[in-house]
Order: sequence, then structure tokens, then C-alpha cells
Amino acid sequence: MAKDNRITLYDLQLASGATISPFVWATKYAVAHKGFDMDIVPGGFTGIPERTGGKTERLPAIVDDGQWVLDSWLIAEYLDEKYPDRPTLIGDPSVKVCGQMIESWLWQTAVGPWMTCYLKAYRDRSVPEDHEYVTTSRERMFGGRKIEDIIIGREDRLPEISANLELMRTTLRENKWFGGDSPNYVDYRLLACFLWLASVADIPALVEDDPLRDWLDRGFDLHGGLGRHAGLSPIFGLQTRDGDPEPFNRNPVGNGLTKRNTGPESTRTETAMMKGQSAK
Amino acid sequence: MAKDNRITLYDLQLASGATISPFVWATKYAVAHKGFDMDIVPGGFTGIPERTGGKTERLPAIVDDGQWVLDSWLIAEYLDEKYPDRPTLIGDPSVKVCGQMIESWLWQTAVGPWMTCYLKAYRDRSVPEDHEYVTTSRERMFGGRKIEDIIIGREDRLPEISANLELMRTTLRENKWFGGDSPNYVDYRLLACFLWLASVADIPALVEDDPLRDWLDRGFDLHGGLGRHAGLSPIFGLQTRDGDPEPFNRNPVGNGLTKRNTGPESTRTETAMMKGQSAK
Repeated sequence: MAKDNRITLYDLQLASGATISPFVWATKYAVAHKGFDMDIVPGGFTGIPERTGGKTERLPAIVDDGQWVLDSWLIAEYLDEKYPDRPTLIGDPSVKVCGQMIESWLWQTAVGPWMTCYLKAYRDRSVPEDHEYVTTSRERMFGGRKIEDIIIGREDRLPEISANLELMRTTLRENKWFGGDSPNYVDYRLLACFLWLASVADIPALVEDDPLRDWLDRGFDLHGGLGRHAGLSPIFGLQTRDGDPEPFNRNPVGNGLTKRNTGPESTRTETAMMKGQSAK
Repeated sequence: MAKDNRITLYDLQLASGATISPFVWATKYAVAHKGFDMDIVPGGFTGIPERTGGKTERLPAIVDDGQWVLDSWLIAEYLDEKYPDRPTLIGDPSVKVCGQMIESWLWQTAVGPWMTCYLKAYRDRSVPEDHEYVTTSRERMFGGRKIEDIIIGREDRLPEISANLELMRTTLRENKWFGGDSPNYVDYRLLACFLWLASVADIPALVEDDPLRDWLDRGFDLHGGLGRHAGLSPIFGLQTRDGDPEPFNRNPVGNGLTKRNTGPESTRTETAMMKGQSAK
């Protein structure tokens, strides 16, 4: 049992002290969800093995009353297994499978493309001793292109990335959380991607009235405003220009897959439309 | 309690007797998963209100010892609530939220596009009294275009639709079922889309060695080969041509999001690569 209800978390931070890693963000939420306080060990990418006594090259890592646990998913599973009487993070094996698929979708759809927009801020905001590592490792990831070149054209890409998030908006129009009535580890995995975004967003990525905002605001406010670190930037406020795609669907027709048939009254209008009769 | 362990299911069929509706397919699997036998009431689109005594315009519907239950999701929830001691379909509220998002993704990615390839077979295979309804309602859905015109170019579209399913392949490379170690209602919702495909596939949609095949074959075999109806067509056997996109990724690099950090040994090769050192 965590001594004094405290768990030690090794953070991965920018110079502002804001967490940069989405995996660490997810772990912070997981630890808070289980009702523990955190002792944060600060630091950037440089010197992780030294800080952790050789335990790991990657973060997050936690120490729970002397026991080291590595890896954001393994930490969540450890917390559920060790503390089953506290609020559950992953309530069914299917939540992990489906949550990882949705997280992969979000990385492909937005996190990866946003990386091409915010890589310079990512590097510039990192702690000074990380600058060279972030520059060389990320330029290598992008086939040797210069960070300054990678971000060119981001004003054209941002409205399109926003538009591509519609599948997530549809889900959140119909559900309060990915966990259902209350947030679970899937919410935290996905919120963590937007917190990563906020940590590097030197210009906003989403428009002010994006329907995702309700879930994001509620999520950032959770656990005493865990996602409201002063080092984060506003992610809302994207200005669109003539010719940009609509940043979100302003006229969603509803998701036929989630309409429920409760009898003829519930389908009459749709039936009339399908038969070409005038639908009142 | 279902009398004699039997539940009555109102089917939505093609002339072959194969189920056409993915929602009815999902319900058949749900009823079988709970261990019930089914009394099938056959029929097509025409005359659903008459067949069901005015209870519904849409199928599936079940009758459990005199109690009518409509709607594929509501039926699954009813079965879990009424029979909690039998195998669970939806083990956590998050499974429904995440499963519906993944199902929406599959409809956008594949079911909708496949509809433009198989609409003629869909109509031609329907029961004779449905032909006119299917023709006029579907042509209206597609902005008034003729069914024969809608399917033009499908040989170009099929390899691309297949390629776009990669996110699902990644998930199934790493998990046996969407339910985890055993199938749950999310598997059934998604399998149902491929069973709909098999009901109308007058030419194959996927190549013989598609990595999805393992999950699909295991899924179609479940519950005594429920997905092996004689009226279904082979979905594997798509022939690709020069210039077609690869129908699936033959060199997946692995999903970084699902790699687990179990200590420095587990990350050493990746670390060397990121630092530009030669990775053995």
C-alpha cells in the first residue's frame, strides 16, 4: 500500500515544468484516478537512466512504496490489480483492445500530423540539455529534414487535421466519456494526446467552438485541474481562412448506427424518407 | 426465462435464406453467445410490420417467452441484464462507447464503400418482393443514380478499401479478439459487417492471405459455424492488378503504442536507432 497515500512518478517535462509525454500524462491521470497523491521527480529526456538508477530508459515510471513499475499501460494494470477497491481504470479486457485501437486511430489521424506542425516548439520548449537530442532524433524520424522545414505549411494542414477528427466528435456527441458515465483509462489515453498538444501548441490547433471542447475542458479539469498546468498553451483559437475545409461538421445528421429502434414511432420518419414519401 | 432455452428471432434475409442485415447477424451471435437456441422467423424487407403484428418496422426483433425486444444493441443489453449468469456480451459501459466508435469507423472505411461495389448483387439476391424497394430506396440514397452505374469502377475501389482496413489488422495482429481472450459483442458487431459483405459479395473483396482472415475464419466458425450459411459467398480471392495499392501492409513495423517497456533491455535497440547508432 502506497505509504502516506503517495506514489512517486518520474516525469518527462519541458522547460516550463509541463509534462511533454502523452504516456506520462496518461499515467498522472491514472494515479490520480486511483486517489493517490504524487511525488513528482522532474526532468527531461536527458539522463533518464541516471535519474532512475538504471531502471529504465523510458518514462513514465512509478515507485509505489519501494516497488518500481514501468510503462504506462503496465502501470494502469498494476494499479487496478493492486488496488481493486479503488475506482477502476480498465473495467474489461475489451476496453484495452478497443482503447488501443482508438488511440492508434488518434495518433494516425492527429498526433502524427500535429507533430509536423509543432516540432519546432517541441524542441524549443524542451529543457536546454534536451535540445540536441530532440533535434537530431526527430529530424532522423522525418528522413533527415530540418525541423524548420518540417513545419512549413502547417497553416494548411491544421484545418484538415481538425476535420479528420469527426469520428471522435460523433462519439462524444452521444457519450459523456469513453468510459460511459464517468472517465476511464481510455479517456485518459486520449486526453493525454491533447495535453501533449497543449504542451507544444505555439499556435492553436482547433477552433474555439469545436464540439470536442466540452469533453476536453471536463477532462483537463478532472482531479483538481490536473490538465491545467501553467506551462500549457491554448489549443482552441485556430483561425480558418477562405478555402480551408470546415474544421468540424456543423450539420451532423446523426449516427444511424446509434439510433435505437423502440417501435414504429421511432422509425416512421426515416421509413417515409426511404420510401420517398414526404417526411414531416 | 426463455422457454425450452429457445428465443424467437425475426430474420432479414436474401432469397438464399442467408441473413442480409448486419444488425440481425450481430443479434444472432448475441443470442448464440448467451447459449440459446433460435427459432428463426424468415422474411425480407417487405412486410415487417405485418410479420411482427405491428411491433416494428425494423429488424432484428426477438421474442423471449412472450416478451418482445427490439433493436440490436437493446437486445444485447437486455440479454446481459436478464441473463447475467450466462457469458457476458458487454462487460463494461466503455465497451459500448468504444465498440460503437470502432463500428462507425468500419462503416465509413469499408461498409459504405463496399455498398458502392455490391449494390447490384444486394438487389439481385434479395427476395423477389423486395427488388423494387431495394432498388428505389438505395438509388435514392445515392442521389438518384442507377444501381448499375453506382457499381462501375468497383475493381479500382476494392484494393483501396482493403488497404484502408490496416488499423483493424494492427489490432488483430496483437489481440485474439476485440473482447480479449474470448469474443464479445464488439467482435460480433464487426464480424456482422463482414457477414453482410459475404451475403452480397458476387466478387471477392479481400485477398486470400489477408491477415484479417484468421479472425474472420475463427469468428465465422463460432457457435457451431453460425457464419457458414450456404448462401454466403467467398470474401477472399480478390485479384489485384498492376498499379493497385497493396491490399494490406506486408511489412508492418509494429505498433509503437503497444510495445511495453519492461526495462532497458526492452528499449535498447530503439534507443540506439533514435541516437543514430548502429542497431544490431
